Order: sequence, then C-alpha cells, then structure tokens
Amino acid sequence: MEITGTYTDQYQLTMAQAYFNNGRKDEKAVFDYFFRKLPYDGGYAVFAGLEILLDVLEKLKFDDTDIEFLSNQGFDAAFIDYLRKFEFTGTIYSSREGDVVFPTRPVLVVEGTLPEAQIVETLLLNILNYHTLIATKASRIRLVAGERKLIDFGMRRAHSTAAYHASRAAVIGGFNATSNVKAAKDFDIPVSGTMAHAFVQSFDEELEAFQNFANVWPENCVLLVDTYDTLKSGLPNAIKVAKELEESGNRLKGIRLDSGDLAYLAKKSRQMLDDAGLEYVQIAASNQLDEYVIKSLLDQGAPIDVFGVGTSLVIGRPDAALDGVYKLVYANEKPRIKLSESTAKITLPDKKQVYRIYNTKGEPIGADLVALANEESMDLMHHPFDVLRQMKLANCKREPLLNKVMENGKRSGDPRSVSEIAEYSKERLGALPEEYKRFDNPHIYKVGLSTRLNDARNELINQYK
Amino acid sequence: MEITGTYTDQYQLTMAQAYFNNGRKDEKAVFDYFFRKLPYDGGYAVFAGLEILLDVLEKLKFDDTDIEFLSNQGFDAAFIDYLRKFEFTGTIYSSREGDVVFPTRPVLVVEGTLPEAQIVETLLLNILNYHTLIATKASRIRLVAGERKLIDFGMRRAHSTAAYHASRAAVIGGFNATSNVKAAKDFDIPVSGTMAHAFVQSFDEELEAFQNFANVWPENCVLLVDTYDTLKSGLPNAIKVAKELEESGNRLKGIRLDSGDLAYLAKKSRQMLDDAGLEYVQIAASNQLDEYVIKSLLDQGAPIDVFGVGTSLVIGRPDAALDGVYKLVYANEKPRIKLSESTAKITLPDKKQVYRIYNTKGEPIGADLVALANEESMDLMHHPFDVLRQMKLANCKREPLLNKVMENGKRSGDPRSVSEIAEYSKERLGALPEEYKRFDNPHIYKVGLSTRLNDARNELINQYK
Repeated sequence: MEITGTYTDQYQLTMAQAYFNNGRKDEKAVFDYFFRKLPYDGGYAVFAGLEILLDVLEKLKFDDTDIEFLSNQGFDAAFIDYLRKFEFTGTIYSSREGDVVFPTRPVLVVEGTLPEAQIVETLLLNILNYHTLIATKASRIRLVAGERKLIDFGMRRAHSTAAYHASRAAVIGGFNATSNVKAAKDFDIPVSGTMAHAFVQSFDEELEAFQNFANVWPENCVLLVDTYDTLKSGLPNAIKVAKELEESGNRLKGIRLDSGDLAYLAKKSRQMLDDAGLEYVQIAASNQLDEYVIKSLLDQGAPIDVFGVGTSLVIGRPDAALDGVYKLVYANEKPRIKLSESTAKITLPDKKQVYRIYNTKGEPIGADLVALANEESMDLMHHPFDVLRQMKLANCKREPLLNKVMENGKRSGDPRSVSEIAEYSKERLGALPEEYKRFDNPHIYKVGLSTRLNDARNELINQYK
Repeated sequence: MEITGTYTDQYQLTMAQAYFNNGRKDEKAVFDYFFRKLPYDGGYAVFAGLEILLDVLEKLKFDDTDIEFLSNQGFDAAFIDYLRKFEFTGTIYSSREGDVVFPTRPVLVVEGTLPEAQIVETLLLNILNYHTLIATKASRIRLVAGERKLIDFGMRRAHSTAAYHASRAAVIGGFNATSNVKAAKDFDIPVSGTMAHAFVQSFDEELEAFQNFANVWPENCVLLVDTYDTLKSGLPNAIKVAKELEESGNRLKGIRLDSGDLAYLAKKSRQMLDDAGLEYVQIAASNQLDEYVIKSLLDQGAPIDVFGVGTSLVIGRPDAALDGVYKLVYANEKPRIKLSESTAKITLPDKKQVYRIYNTKGEPIGADLVALANEESMDLMHHPFDVLRQMKLANCKREPLLNKVMENGKRSGDPRSVSEIAEYSKERLGALPEEYKRFDNPHIYKVGLSTRLNDARNELINQYK
C-alpha cells in the first residue's frame, strides 16, 4: 500500500468540501501537533517520524483510483477537480527529529490552506504518533543496556507493515541493528540474524545442524542453543563447533539463549565457554525482553553481550499508542481555541514558538517555554493550568526549538539519515538531566507559557465562556 | 512500502543460504502456524488476514533493489541467483478466514521447500498475528454493541500503515464502517465521517459552522456538539439547524458526543432532541471507547445509536500483540519436534488435520481435535499436556477445518471479499456457545490430540530426551 490522498479520515474530506464550497480553499490555517501525556509513565519522549512525514507530504497526490472512488461518494465535481490537482503547499516548523520532547508544547506546526492542513491531519498523526512511541521505548531500553548491543527482533509481532517503521524508530532511539531486511535496506540500518529453531530441528542431530551452519557462515556464526537442552546439549555442541572453527582459523561469534532462566543460563554458559578457552564467544539473549527484564538480568550479573528485543519494543508495550493530537490554533485571520470541561484539554491558541531554557552556564534547567511566534521579551514562565505558579527567566538563554523544515510544500534542507538522527538523539538525551530519565516517578519537566500567550489564551476562554 | 522478498528477518535468509548450499533447496518441509494463548483473556479468537497473505505470496519476488542489497551482505552468488528467480511454490491448508480458532491447534499449514517455507515465515506471522488480534477485538466490541452501528475511528492512533489492515480486520470482526478512506476504497468497506472540532473552531460562531456544514451536506450531516459546551451551546445549535434542515425537506442525521460523561450527556441530549420533535436524530459517541466502556454505557441506559471506536480497537488493547508462532513439523522426510522446559511449548510434530467436533444433533460440543493428516479412526481425544485426561468421541461428527487454499503457489479458489468473510465470521461466532464468549472467565474450549498424534509426539519426545 502506498500513501496517497485517501490515506486520511473521511471527515477530513467532507470538511474540506465544506471549506471549498464556502470560498475558503485558500484561507490560511495553523495547526499544532502535540501530546498531553508522556508514554510509559516516563519523563520524556523522543520525537521521531519527521523525515518520513516530509517524504510523504512532498509526494502526496490523489491517484486515479482515489479520484474515481471519491467521485462516487457524493463529493462535488468542482471539489473532485481540486483534489485531482491537489499538492501539499504548506509550511512546517518542527522540533528536530530525535530531540527529547514534552507534553503540552507544540512539537510540530503546520501552516497551510484550511483544506490541505485538514486533509493531512490523519497521516501526520498516524506517522508521528507511532514513530515517537517506538523511538521513546527504544531509548528506555538503551538507557538500561549501557553499551551492550541491542537488536530489533520485532518484525513478526509488529502491527503488520508498521514493522518497517518500527525498525527505523528503534535505531533512532538507540538500537544498533534490526532483523528486518527491508528496513535495513531502505533506511541504511545494520542488519542482523543467524539461525532459528527450525534450522536445528531440520537436522537429525543438533551438532550436525551447528556444523552445517558454521560451514556456510564461518565468520558470522551465532548458534541457537536451546532447541533441545541448553546446558546438556546446546552448549557442549556449540563448544565443539567453536573448536572446529578455530582449527579452520575462524572464531565462533556467539551463542543465543531464547528460553528458560536467562540469568542462570547466561552465567552457566559463560562459565562453560570460558572453561573451554572461548572467552571471545559472545552471549546473546532474547525472549520477551523489555527495559525492566534487561535491567533485572543485568542487576543479577547476567553476562549477556547482546539483547534481541521484539514484541515489547515494536508495539510500545504497555501503552501501545501515543495520544498525539493536531489542533487548529489559527484560522480566518484569528487565533482559535478549543474549550473543554477538562482544563488540561484546552488548547493554546495562535502561532507559537517553543524555547528550551538554559541557565547562564548553558546547562538545561528542565523547562520549555511556549510563546507567541512574534514575541520578544519573555521574562516570566506561567504554569499552563495553575494561575498561581510562575517562574522567572531573567538571564536565561533560550534555544528556539521549532525550525522551518518545509516551505510551500518543499523540504527546506536535505533529508537527514537515520544514523544522523540517532546521533543527535543520543546527544540530546545525554544532555537531559538524569532525574527526567529514571523509570520510577521521574521528575516532571516544566512546560510553561509566556505572559503574552497566557493572556491571549485567557482572553479567548473568556470570550467563548 | 511494498512487500517484497526482503520483508523478512535476516536469519531466514542466512538459514536459506545454508539449506541451499547443502543441497536442500528442494527438500519438502511443513510448518504450522498457531498460537498458545487467546488474546484479551477471552474464550476464542477470530482468524483473519488469510486473503492478504495469499495476495502477498502470489506476487512475492525479490526486486532489483533487494537483490542489489543482498549481494552486498555476504550471500553467495549462486544463492543470490536463486533469490532472483524466487517465487513461492508452496501449498497452504488453512482455517477459513473469519472462523473462530483456538490455541495449540494449527490454524494454517505451509508445505513447501525448506528455503521458501522459511523465507515466508516472517511476513506470514506479521500479517496473520495482527489481523487476528484486531478481528478478535472487533468481535468483542460487536458482542456488547448488539445491533448498534460500530465505526472504526482508529487510523490516527494505529501503528503507522497498520491502519490499512486494522480497518479491514475490524469489519471482519463485526464493525459496520471505517473512517479510513483508503481501506474503504481498496477493501470495499462502507466509509463514514462528517466533522471534527477544527471545523467548528474555524468559524467565529458554532451555529455558523453547523449551518455551513448542513448546507453542504444536507443529507449526511452529523454535528459534533462538544467544541464549547455540549448542552448549553452544541445541542441548542444542533436543534436549530435540524429545524432549518426540515424546512428544506432534509433531516439532520445525528449529533456526536466526543467528551465528558457520555452516559449523562447522551440521556440529556436524547431528551432535548425528543422534546424538539427530533426523535429521528441519532446520537453517536466516541472518545476512548472499548468493549467495557460500551457495555457500561449501555448498562446505564445511555441512548447511543452509533459508537466510534479508535485506539483500543486498532492497537488491540491491552494485549497489543498476538504471539502466533510458525513451527517446523516435518523436514528431511521425518516428523520434527521442538522441545522446551515448558511442556506447553513442545510442538506437535508431522502433517496434521484439525476437526471441529459436533454431537449427533450437529451442535458443536466445544472441542477441536488435532490428528495426523492421514488418520482415519479417531474415537478418543487426548488432553495435549495432561496424560490423565481423555474424552471419548464415539458417534461425534467431524468437520475438517484445514482446507487447501493455495496449491504450488496459486490460490485454489477465488479471493473472498471482506463482506463475505465478515458474514461467515458472524455465522461461526453465532454458532459458538455463549459460555465461550463471555468476558469474565470464559469456558475453556477443548483442543485435544488423536491417539496416533499423541503417540507420535511422545515417541519423538523420548527420542530427543
């Protein structure tokens, strides 16, 4: 399936037709993409999916089958003609892909005509929500794994074709490689994989299977040792093959444990390998791993060098969804607001900029300030919902976070590679103080409003109440 | 992204190379697809994704970019040449798409050459696991919703392009329509959608927004009433527009509630609409719904006619994954087994058939029997793990569940449409006794082994222990 114009919710098109019929097809609108709650009860999220979104928007068209289908859905001929010629001509300001981002503040801003900005809402949410969910999960796993190798094994349990994006997002969040060949090819990610149980089972003897594989892949041989009995059969056979490889001038790369008590088996395996003089053979582990299991294994001193992580990574367990939203903040030449009985769901009107705040030494103080786009003086930061809480920002340094990444439908710079994005993410996550990265009750990163934005919002609330 | 040969795990290819180099490229192998645990702690699963899988297998090729990439990954030239000419030539026996299926028993069986059956493992699991997870979730929501209309709203929170398959699986499980235009187009599913908050916000007045929309869509007008204040603003404005529509000979189709206490607001809204003589105006509700919330709303007597279900449906919350597996059961002219320290993870060897058991009146007794493919006499059903438990099957009727759906890489019959599959699923789920469909502690459906299969398995276990 290719993403074309119909990759959207039907209501985007019924609304677009209404805008179109009422002479609003060229009216400017601004939408914010943001989320209200961090995934995994964590202290940050890793923003991802931007380059994929820009790729899609640059090429977005309603193809012939789209046009034919919509022509039979009650849309007007003039609007169908508009869709036939549709291209996305909007301008996008965005956080940089890989940056750490926080709730409430705009992560990305779309400025475009009212119909086009509406039509792209669904695909934008669909892409950014998932990428960010998975990159964030991957970064949590990286935090506990230290320098150990992390491989994405999730393809078979990913939500159908989402596997393709999962592997990319995993690397942005800090994974080293993927088992997913297509993602590796298209996103230039290291690929990894050796053997499954089926290979061992397909031979009468485990040893024969190991020898056979080592013969074909002498330089890239990781033996899966738990098909029959890890310590009584798998390890002794693997050691035998390692010795045979040594005779032919090669080295067994590793063994993989995929069931049982991984901490116990890793320790025993390490000992057996070391006793056989095979200190160089690595131990890889897989089977229902996530950041908590890996932390527990390492806390127990399990000598595991490589972790293969599948389901939990690619589905973003336990959340499995990021509730990112896309809200209208400017239309018909006026700032716009959505009210709600829940204060936290009231939107921030108008075109805005977001600043990361640093102290005079250039250290991040754990705060992002949301201000109006054209605002200059910003000495005070207001809590978004609690009128009594404010923070002074005198002498602070400000880094603007939303930068133009697309202008009139064209990318503003060259696409960034996955490795470049991953490197940037590592740097930004590194700069984030530890207290925001711990898993239990992480410190709450401050997101506040400038005085002018705060006033503008309160004025609009009063106007509609 | 299109699914081609590289849509697989790297280890499938390293294993395939090893089979190939060892003269096993034409050796016959048989793999079973099955799962060990039902999703959602429920009593059944709805099998889905088969037609998608068959589509993919019929067209599967390594394209030029695949071949180029793999050529640089250390694969041998002769094997690369094999991949260049690769087509899937296997034969598939499967449960019918939409049928209710249960743990342990094969849901689908692939017979093919060892390398080809190995290469397609990942895409098969990737497609069937997700479709089955979502169709099952949809069917649970249908069970509580009765005859009310159910619409899939999940596209923005689905795992990127998985949205496309989610909408299809939702309809197989009993949903009426989707908001996802592309899925509606390609799978011939009814599409649904009217307006979002942004539309209302883009006008200075809510009433103006409603009138504007009603003017463009007089026959398909569902007004979203909670942008500012549901009962004080949204409902009065919707009633005004409904009256105006009546004057022009039309009828307001419905209102939609998307926040707040849906039970309370639905009752109040119904009353206000009825008091205005608008009994025909339907009430639609959305916002974080799932089978439990819908049940609660209906238990409270909320007069809701249409439910829009998003995130929970398309991510299959809370499980978000089905752990379906694909295990080698026959290779090198012998039945194969995988042992495990956990008895429940020991596989069932050899080529098999599965039978649904009916009593003499033709009523299902809540049992599927797994037997060897060539077995005739099956009077006893053995518990798969508990040697003391058996059940007599004398005078029972048997329905074979695995039927040939693909032979030598070609579909055996015409593809089935989504509506046909949904109809079949409804019938099969209808035939399943209620006790397997309740949410709390559902009755456990029996899956057992024939005597010959049981003996064959025990013999192999002893051989490897």
